[in-house]
Amino acid sequence: MYNIIYSSLGVCASKGFFADGISAGLKKEGAKDMAFIYSEDECEVASVFTTNKMCAAPIRHFREMGNVKSNFIVINSKNANAMTGKAGIEDIKEVLSNSPLHVKNPIMSSTGVIGVRLPKVKIIEGMKLFDLRKRDSSSASRAIMTTDTFPKEISFNVKLDDGSSFNIGAIAKGAGMINPAMATMLCFITTDAKVSRAEMQEILDEVVKTTFNAISVDGDTSTNDTVLLLANSRSGAYDKEAFKEALFKVMHFLALEMVRDGEGATKLVTYKVSGARDDREAEIAAKALSDSLLVKTALFGEDPNWGRIASTIGASGVEAYEEKLKISFDNLCVYDRGEILFDAEMEKKCAVIMQHKKFTISCDLGVGEGSFKAYGCDLGHEYVKINADYRT
Amino acid sequence: MYNIIYSSLGVCASKGFFADGISAGLKKEGAKDMAFIYSEDECEVASVFTTNKMCAAPIRHFREMGNVKSNFIVINSKNANAMTGKAGIEDIKEVLSNSPLHVKNPIMSSTGVIGVRLPKVKIIEGMKLFDLRKRDSSSASRAIMTTDTFPKEISFNVKLDDGSSFNIGAIAKGAGMINPAMATMLCFITTDAKVSRAEMQEILDEVVKTTFNAISVDGDTSTNDTVLLLANSRSGAYDKEAFKEALFKVMHFLALEMVRDGEGATKLVTYKVSGARDDREAEIAAKALSDSLLVKTALFGEDPNWGRIASTIGASGVEAYEEKLKISFDNLCVYDRGEILFDAEMEKKCAVIMQHKKFTISCDLGVGEGSFKAYGCDLGHEYVKINADYRT
Repeated sequence: MYNIIYSSLGVCASKGFFADGISAGLKKEGAKDMAFIYSEDECEVASVFTTNKMCAAPIRHFREMGNVKSNFIVINSKNANAMTGKAGIEDIKEVLSNSPLHVKNPIMSSTGVIGVRLPKVKIIEGMKLFDLRKRDSSSASRAIMTTDTFPKEISFNVKLDDGSSFNIGAIAKGAGMINPAMATMLCFITTDAKVSRAEMQEILDEVVKTTFNAISVDGDTSTNDTVLLLANSRSGAYDKEAFKEALFKVMHFLALEMVRDGEGATKLVTYKVSGARDDREAEIAAKALSDSLLVKTALFGEDPNWGRIASTIGASGVEAYEEKLKISFDNLCVYDRGEILFDAEMEKKCAVIMQHKKFTISCDLGVGEGSFKAYGCDLGHEYVKINADYRT
Repeated sequence: MYNIIYSSLGVCASKGFFADGISAGLKKEGAKDMAFIYSEDECEVASVFTTNKMCAAPIRHFREMGNVKSNFIVINSKNANAMTGKAGIEDIKEVLSNSPLHVKNPIMSSTGVIGVRLPKVKIIEGMKLFDLRKRDSSSASRAIMTTDTFPKEISFNVKLDDGSSFNIGAIAKGAGMINPAMATMLCFITTDAKVSRAEMQEILDEVVKTTFNAISVDGDTSTNDTVLLLANSRSGAYDKEAFKEALFKVMHFLALEMVRDGEGATKLVTYKVSGARDDREAEIAAKALSDSLLVKTALFGEDPNWGRIASTIGASGVEAYEEKLKISFDNLCVYDRGEILFDAEMEKKCAVIMQHKKFTISCDLGVGEGSFKAYGCDLGHEYVKINADYRT
């Protein structure tokens, strides 16, 4: 057994880790736009990246390094260093070799506009401002924001039965482009648990499926999606189950924070699909719902348009039948295997549920045992406003 | 050889066909909401329907009839008769058997809100108002509109070399839910060509791929999508190539009209993908572009954000490489196989192109010979407004 206790130190909760955010003049008006995460000890690194074929230079650069140990990540916002080809990778090498910092195999991560070369001089100057003794995770989490409206961080202390304990903490940025297959989302996780790279990678791959890969803001998958998990073993403590659960808690929390902060989002909706032929079909149906423009705009309008939910399930391609489907808003069943329970009175009750900031739409397909939970948000005028003119 | 000449009679261009629209009180304020298409002679019928598993009662009813000849279609808007189960089919049978009209194997087609039983009494009363001698295709095209802002119809007279000629005409409704795999789109096509059912079906299946299945407004596929093609052979004339070309012209025109009238759309964009591994991959990439929320909102903002185009291609799953991709706005190449041509001056030129009502975004993937053209629109505030509160 073990205890997982919330703490509020973000990536600096893990012993031996340092972080800070600074302004390098990439964003306007002195806003923070560069961050670092540093560990005194070398770390094992596990990673998950975008499936986008046009993956950005920082990801290619990381892959070129192979499975090396590292103790440093530098992150910039405002420029994604994507679609910049070999020059983009050369830019990273130049920036990192011009840094005055004594670090091991530094990793770079970027988010922002696609197709513009990295402003190398500003970034090199920015790195000179880094103070590796700083422990300001919040500042780092602010510096990596793009259209995020609030910073995202969390940490836990995990107490094991033998009296030992380890920490795990993270910062993340999300907002637009959040997609079932990852997104312009960056997440940096630190731990002082004593875990091997292989085991950490295996656990990360599993946890990402039900967390970052279960969320959607607009169904687009970015060029820069990155999850990096650094372990420096400082605590000497480890328990696989406890580590997995703590990692899930970290990633689940941050995933939902990203949806809640989806561009212009006002609601966080859980799509719970059960009774599917298998888990894969449940996932397809749940993500079809969280991605559907018609469903998302109905949520924004607080319109309990269950017909669009049925239609989206039908269009998703999974095995489904009108006479086997059940649809509920929270615990209120509006359609039960061929019977339309939705009437004027129920419409009022549903509308009340939809006024909440959080609610669940459940669909039981009635054909098997498969289930999946996806998380999505509504789509309103703010989304259009933010995205119609993102670059300027 | 043959000549295809535009005419303006819609479904009544074909000899022996009649049509009209009336108000049965389904829509507010006496707007037209029911239409018929009638042929004096029995017709062969070809059809394409939605791939949605929750397909609506009228489609199930039609399929139950088998490949019978028919000379009558009744269409209602405002109610989709979808998710209404067996009762929905019984409602159609009751409505049709209570009609005073002497017609053969009548077909019903519906569009509107999902999950509400058909208002049978109003519809039966409405059918009593039909005058089968009317030739008012425009009125029929108005009656089938839902969120469409203008009616859609077209017709052609096809003159063959031997002096014979035949006609082909259609009405359609589109707007929201328009999707690559069809949409809440209805299209009714009449012809007096002397064509067999099997050949007509084969041609229809082929033409639908590059017309109605190449357009997208919001990526959702409705429960009611229907294309019906009725041929009464009245002209005695036929030529396969001429028929196919005329049918393409009819469906292509109406498909683009639907995109142009996509909910809140202000722009009609052609996505031309070439150099894909094969035609199928070109289609996937082109439709990914026309469906991408980030691309659509950038169009609305007249923001030449070519990075989002590259990212969407990369996320679509087709074979693509940063160093082989070319992206152009009309004839202006902004990204050429690794080289970013986009600068401040070009941005201005691109912005001018994007102010147009119609333009083309071309992507050459540089890996093979596959090509496909998809058609899409932008997504603006109006879309959100229309869909946030559709039912009320």
